[in-house]
Amino acid sequence: MLARGQNVPTIEQAADFVERRRPEVATLLISRSVLLGSADNFLKSFPGGTLYAVKANPHPEVLACLGASEIAGFDVASIEEAESVRTVCSSKPLHYSHPVKATASIRDAYKIGIRHYVVDSEVELDKILACVSRPLSIAVRLKTPEKSGTYDFNTKFGLHPAESVPLIKRIIDAKVEWGLTFHVGSQCKHPKAFSAAIHVCHSVIENLGKMPGYLNVGGGFPVAYGQERSDLTAYFVEIKAACSRMPRVPLLCEPGRALVAESGTLVVQVIGRADDRVFLSDGVFGSFGEVNYSKIQMTPYHLTRASAVPSLAESEFRVFGPTCDSFDELDQRLLLPATIKEGDWLIFPMMGAYSNALASRFNGFRLPSVELID
Amino acid sequence: MLARGQNVPTIEQAADFVERRRPEVATLLISRSVLLGSADNFLKSFPGGTLYAVKANPHPEVLACLGASEIAGFDVASIEEAESVRTVCSSKPLHYSHPVKATASIRDAYKIGIRHYVVDSEVELDKILACVSRPLSIAVRLKTPEKSGTYDFNTKFGLHPAESVPLIKRIIDAKVEWGLTFHVGSQCKHPKAFSAAIHVCHSVIENLGKMPGYLNVGGGFPVAYGQERSDLTAYFVEIKAACSRMPRVPLLCEPGRALVAESGTLVVQVIGRADDRVFLSDGVFGSFGEVNYSKIQMTPYHLTRASAVPSLAESEFRVFGPTCDSFDELDQRLLLPATIKEGDWLIFPMMGAYSNALASRFNGFRLPSVELID
Repeated sequence: MLARGQNVPTIEQAADFVERRRPEVATLLISRSVLLGSADNFLKSFPGGTLYAVKANPHPEVLACLGASEIAGFDVASIEEAESVRTVCSSKPLHYSHPVKATASIRDAYKIGIRHYVVDSEVELDKILACVSRPLSIAVRLKTPEKSGTYDFNTKFGLHPAESVPLIKRIIDAKVEWGLTFHVGSQCKHPKAFSAAIHVCHSVIENLGKMPGYLNVGGGFPVAYGQERSDLTAYFVEIKAACSRMPRVPLLCEPGRALVAESGTLVVQVIGRADDRVFLSDGVFGSFGEVNYSKIQMTPYHLTRASAVPSLAESEFRVFGPTCDSFDELDQRLLLPATIKEGDWLIFPMMGAYSNALASRFNGFRLPSVELID
Repeated sequence: MLARGQNVPTIEQAADFVERRRPEVATLLISRSVLLGSADNFLKSFPGGTLYAVKANPHPEVLACLGASEIAGFDVASIEEAESVRTVCSSKPLHYSHPVKATASIRDAYKIGIRHYVVDSEVELDKILACVSRPLSIAVRLKTPEKSGTYDFNTKFGLHPAESVPLIKRIIDAKVEWGLTFHVGSQCKHPKAFSAAIHVCHSVIENLGKMPGYLNVGGGFPVAYGQERSDLTAYFVEIKAACSRMPRVPLLCEPGRALVAESGTLVVQVIGRADDRVFLSDGVFGSFGEVNYSKIQMTPYHLTRASAVPSLAESEFRVFGPTCDSFDELDQRLLLPATIKEGDWLIFPMMGAYSNALASRFNGFRLPSVELID
């Protein structure tokens, strides 16, 4: 994972972009070198295959860049995501990891070559077995022991470990490869959440007396927003240690945010200011959709219109998006130059994940542009 | 406003649509007759001109239908909304009611013929006066006396009445028509919020000793979700009474939700069920974006695949959208037939406002379709 200091070139590239293009539309700048750096970190340190969770940023340039990398494949949540990957990468395997899928989607998924599915119920297994043929691989999604991420994925998906055994037996009886998977929750702050979940998988394997084809430890690897550096070493160490205490099984993981967040730098323009209120060209219904509910701490860089050195005096501002909706306000105040005014730009690093992916066109505003900076 | 009973034909039309089309993609059905009925209610009962707030539902068919009606014009929040209206309606005036606009947007707005603007600060007035010529009309947006809507619009926009007088004098000195406007907040439950705000406007007018060109009472007219009937009579009576106590001034209003909500009926398919969890083809990142934060009570109708009479026994279900995100869950449980299963459809009436307008393509899912049913 890149140290925060390594974002500086990205900030400089963003500043250069502003100088050249003076963008009025919010623009997400993607650095392929940073993206490949994040992928490389998983390739070198994660003890298994890495699948990119497309939902974090489905832009074709992101998919193409990772498609050409050494990562093992993609985790898709819908047919549309699978099709997007296939337009830029024809070879790598796709894992349809969403535990609840329309029957028509399962049928379409098999047609376009998806062979890896996830279930967390008898009903879902019935759906898959009824409409696809072999070869086939189905992982059972287990609930993890406790809430450990910023988001708790256990209330929506996942089977209690005890209930998983009959389901796995049915998969084995159907001559289908079986696996186990879980999701500790996005932005997981506790490496031990992974080892605890792996321990649950181990118990299920012992209970069955049979080895799965693979163990997919999901996503949830955190990004250190606003911190000095993101470092996933403790997570990889914990996962390796937990796996060393059980029979050897091929591992997979599904990072989304951890692969793409640091590669994306958002450039927005100040469209208005009145007293302590600053209005930006992008907001909660655009690229900042996740910022409020995830409590991500934003640390923007300020850039004035004419490359002037910004004022050193800073004030706290309320920050609004461009829509007329009262919800379109960041729920954190930002320290910005006291002289900030319409036409200035703000550069928000580490905005590659869940920004363009969540944007709507509310109030008519265009979706943020996406551009490559290297 | 249409009584709830009058939704029954819409429900029947939706059921017919399901029979004929068996839609796998969430579809918002628009009834032009219901839409025109809502418009007619304003035309007959509101004592002034009605502008449609495009943000509530910017679909071209909605704009075309209202453009061909007798309403006075449109309230737009962005250049993109203005352009959308102009593609289907070349004649009716547009009011650019967003109090904070990029300078480039103001310039573009004037070019495409917008003559009515809103400000709530000196800075915004400077921007407008600097880049557009005459004829011109500028309304000053005032804060309303208290929080009265589901959303409080006062924290983001609006000038304290006492501060408005020098701003209005500057508008008058610039030989520009001036107006007053406010917004009581969306889904305003208290008719007196309008009269209290009109009273504030009256005080400002008395203070100045000059009459404005118009008084725009904004939006906020509520829709009676899940109730027997929506009835705005009390609001119109209150507005008329408040205006009768001051010198006569032309009135405008800007309903969005109250014009379009009842004309839209959302059809979604059940894509999965496990125990008390039902997964739909549309969710919080799609058409239900506003449902959770507005606490709108949903009352869906159930339709089985084969037009069978649904089971009478009902259970409470947790309802999820199609994405894999943990936030994609309605925060209210719905009473649905205990036998509900994949392939069934649910029909949600009164979904015409803030549904397709807020939808994103998160997880790759397509935006809801929009179709006319009459």
